[in-house]
Amino acid sequence: MAGEFELIKRYFAPLSGPAGLGLLDDAALYQPSPNYELVFTKDMLIEGVHFFPDTPAELLAEKVLAVNLSDLAAKGAEPLYYWLGMALPRSVSEGWVGKFSSGLKSYQEQHGVQLAGGDTTACLGAMVFSVTMMGQTPTGKMLPRSGAKVGDGLYVTGTIGDAALGLLCFQENDSRYPFLTDRYLRPQARLSVGLSLRGIASACADVSDGLLADAGHVMTSSNVGLRIESARIPVSGEAQAYMKKLMIPQTRLWSGGDDYELIFTAPANKQDEISAIADKAGVQITRIGSVVQQKGLQLLDDSGQLVHIAETGYQHFK
Amino acid sequence: MAGEFELIKRYFAPLSGPAGLGLLDDAALYQPSPNYELVFTKDMLIEGVHFFPDTPAELLAEKVLAVNLSDLAAKGAEPLYYWLGMALPRSVSEGWVGKFSSGLKSYQEQHGVQLAGGDTTACLGAMVFSVTMMGQTPTGKMLPRSGAKVGDGLYVTGTIGDAALGLLCFQENDSRYPFLTDRYLRPQARLSVGLSLRGIASACADVSDGLLADAGHVMTSSNVGLRIESARIPVSGEAQAYMKKLMIPQTRLWSGGDDYELIFTAPANKQDEISAIADKAGVQITRIGSVVQQKGLQLLDDSGQLVHIAETGYQHFK
Repeated sequence: MAGEFELIKRYFAPLSGPAGLGLLDDAALYQPSPNYELVFTKDMLIEGVHFFPDTPAELLAEKVLAVNLSDLAAKGAEPLYYWLGMALPRSVSEGWVGKFSSGLKSYQEQHGVQLAGGDTTACLGAMVFSVTMMGQTPTGKMLPRSGAKVGDGLYVTGTIGDAALGLLCFQENDSRYPFLTDRYLRPQARLSVGLSLRGIASACADVSDGLLADAGHVMTSSNVGLRIESARIPVSGEAQAYMKKLMIPQTRLWSGGDDYELIFTAPANKQDEISAIADKAGVQITRIGSVVQQKGLQLLDDSGQLVHIAETGYQHFK
Repeated sequence: MAGEFELIKRYFAPLSGPAGLGLLDDAALYQPSPNYELVFTKDMLIEGVHFFPDTPAELLAEKVLAVNLSDLAAKGAEPLYYWLGMALPRSVSEGWVGKFSSGLKSYQEQHGVQLAGGDTTACLGAMVFSVTMMGQTPTGKMLPRSGAKVGDGLYVTGTIGDAALGLLCFQENDSRYPFLTDRYLRPQARLSVGLSLRGIASACADVSDGLLADAGHVMTSSNVGLRIESARIPVSGEAQAYMKKLMIPQTRLWSGGDDYELIFTAPANKQDEISAIADKAGVQITRIGSVVQQKGLQLLDDSGQLVHIAETGYQHFK
């Protein structure tokens, strides 16, 4: 394989935008736009923890960007630039690097984000990707986690739990559920919905740790309670079929991570605008519950009884 | 050990500045100052590649920040915020995390930089740290790599090669050279010199890959040649003594990395201002050569003869 500097020149400099200075300066230089604030997010992906060792390079490139784009979507931020840290074992071929950079290129063009810099190093063990991504919102318009108010509705985009089931399909090499597998392998950040929710959502987060865990984050940050009606949680047709076949309990959906949908709260008088956003983006948006005074997360079953929550989502070191 | 969210709350939220939103929002929000540009840098450090597995937590914390601060120093940028990605094996104790966070705290307070966010994940193998750091310069004042002009002088701060020899001392458990060991273990970013060089240096880089390699980066970016008089390269007393004792050739100094000094070019008429900067900062600044028309890096020995350069510095995957 070529040396570090040659790899950067050949495969990564072509991905860089103006702030990246051609990746020749060991630094990026960005002139912020007046009346905008900058929003930053960082996510690491580690081989064997966040992805399987044999994940195709292009899919991995998409995922590395998607998980960060999803964080920006949840803030209502428009993506601008990213920084890419990569630790690659010496066994990685230049062909692999080429495919990875192609994957980045097509995904970044699709989502309007460019490379600004990074660090490429050799490592002895697992591959590591560490992305810092920067976006912008007009000053004061970032969607916070902490703005949920009692009486607001609680909403989610798309369907919940597909990625967790898709991971099972993928592990069991079961090709009968392409929608689920795709939802696990090729997460889509809800950028256009996030942008449209500026001025409408009172609080927002992405569903990456699991629906109940991320609902919990919104709840804790906002210092309110949440009541979720489990029957309203949107479940895809394939997810229903797969769960039935494998007798997987519904609870699995609610704590499964990696959906990269948005969960948000909004005042009751915003319902029409939310429906219009859903129509325009072609993305299902479902009201699954309410923000309530009483602290804690209440999950209700079909008959309105409280469901005991054993596991809300994934947490490292636990 | 506590879970991911509890660790963040206990050990990292106290390090965060206003942009970090208490590390409760999965995003940072920064309102840029008018008339300033933002400068970004990213460096990864991997256990077994960039540091030894038994490096004390506080020293590691310092190094993780120092290598990024050094990149900002080379751009004449004032540090603002950093994002910290950490992959930690489950064998790491909470005591270790506490010490690491203490090390970050004292070093960041010393250098006026604050935590804005990050990602903490468990890993199966080596520890990985990935820092993205943001600084600012008045618009148009960043020190580029690419501004060296024929006729400029070539300068370095401090002494060269100490860290490479310090690494040898450290590996051989030789305690007779505390200055060298310290230079390896506790790199100091030349922030105040970097800030003072705004408007004076025509090009600047930090010496992290090795003197000749980093001189080469300035040369290539600026599309000029460099002539270095090897006898002028500043070498510390301990480095001289250690090299003599172990019969280490001088060339080792010129390609050794991790010094985190600055290498810069400046027009001849800036000599007095450069001397004043050195005096004020209490840092030695030495003119080691010149920017010349003829492309390539010429290294001259004591008698003015060209020295053959076999190795300029460290490069991953080579």
